Amino acid sequence: MQPWNFIIVRDAGVKGRVQAAFADANAEAEAMFGPDRRPLYSSLKLEGILQAPVSICVTCDRARGGPVVLGRTHAPEMDLYSTVCAVQNLWLAARSEGIGVGWVSIFRSGALSEILGLPESVVPVAWLCLGYVEELYDQPELAAKGWASRLPLEQLIFCDTWGQCEGARDVPSDVTPPAW
Amino acid sequence: MQPWNFIIVRDAGVKGRVQAAFADANAEAEAMFGPDRRPLYSSLKLEGILQAPVSICVTCDRARGGPVVLGRTHAPEMDLYSTVCAVQNLWLAARSEGIGVGWVSIFRSGALSEILGLPESVVPVAWLCLGYVEELYDQPELAAKGWASRLPLEQLIFCDTWGQCEGARDVPSDVTPPAW
Repeated sequence: MQPWNFIIVRDAGVKGRVQAAFADANAEAEAMFGPDRRPLYSSLKLEGILQAPVSICVTCDRARGGPVVLGRTHAPEMDLYSTVCAVQNLWLAARSEGIGVGWVSIFRSGALSEILGLPESVVPVAWLCLGYVEELYDQPELAAKGWASRLPLEQLIFCDTWGQCEGARDVPSDVTPPAW
Repeated sequence: MQPWNFIIVRDAGVKGRVQAAFADANAEAEAMFGPDRRPLYSSLKLEGILQAPVSICVTCDRARGGPVVLGRTHAPEMDLYSTVCAVQNLWLAARSEGIGVGWVSIFRSGALSEILGLPESVVPVAWLCLGYVEELYDQPELAAKGWASRLPLEQLIFCDTWGQCEGARDVPSDVTPPAW
């Protein structure tokens, strides 16, 4: 489907406008959390827009391929999902080269489109900050910093229908790998 | 955020109902393509619901974590995107073990939710068919079969703003990897 574009941003002016858009939205975001959580919230590193040498805005062209696209006939959101798959591929590839990637999602609707001059059919899916980092965490950063805990696996894996746990983690015995 | 659940489906009854739901929607999908494309469309393998020993429905609970979730304050779709990242991780992990994964997206809205008994806040993001396959393609299957061609890179990569190509593929010279 390839609905994506990658806009590689190194220009200081563009980065400055994007950082200002983040700051506006993040002030609103912080106010949504209770006073007990706000100090921890403010201490989290939620963006590195100015510090990262390269940022990439990954977009999705909702009109690409015309009105009828295989895989989107009944699920029009599949172009967005394909774009997210591309983001995750980029993320893993970067990480395997020791490059940190941060996905910044705290922007008011329309802010990135305006700054980057996106056509009407194109939506920004991800703003990614890329760069060598001081530390790559062994666990999700929000867990390491005490913001959230990992959910237990048994709440997340079901078998055959919603809520049914029994058998979910059985390994099928009747499947044999091909002799490659 | 962990908004996802993985419902592992091996039950033949469930698979049968899902396959029937696919067949209903796919008849509609096929009719959306012109008569010139329909023979090729019908020849494509768009699902392996009954053949795959294991299917996984990956869902997203839109209500998980309460009304205010870090990263979703301004972009409520980030839970869906997180779920897609999990799908892509699963896809790559499977492929690295020689297991084929097919994402089936041709279902009428609500069909999977009804079959799997999903709560109201939970949406199905992906139906994945997993199994050892006869062949793993070196290029995207729809390209190999002549349905679509890969787009040229210069249409997909821009620099600093939409539509600007110059400099997009330059390698920055002022970035030095840390001495790890």
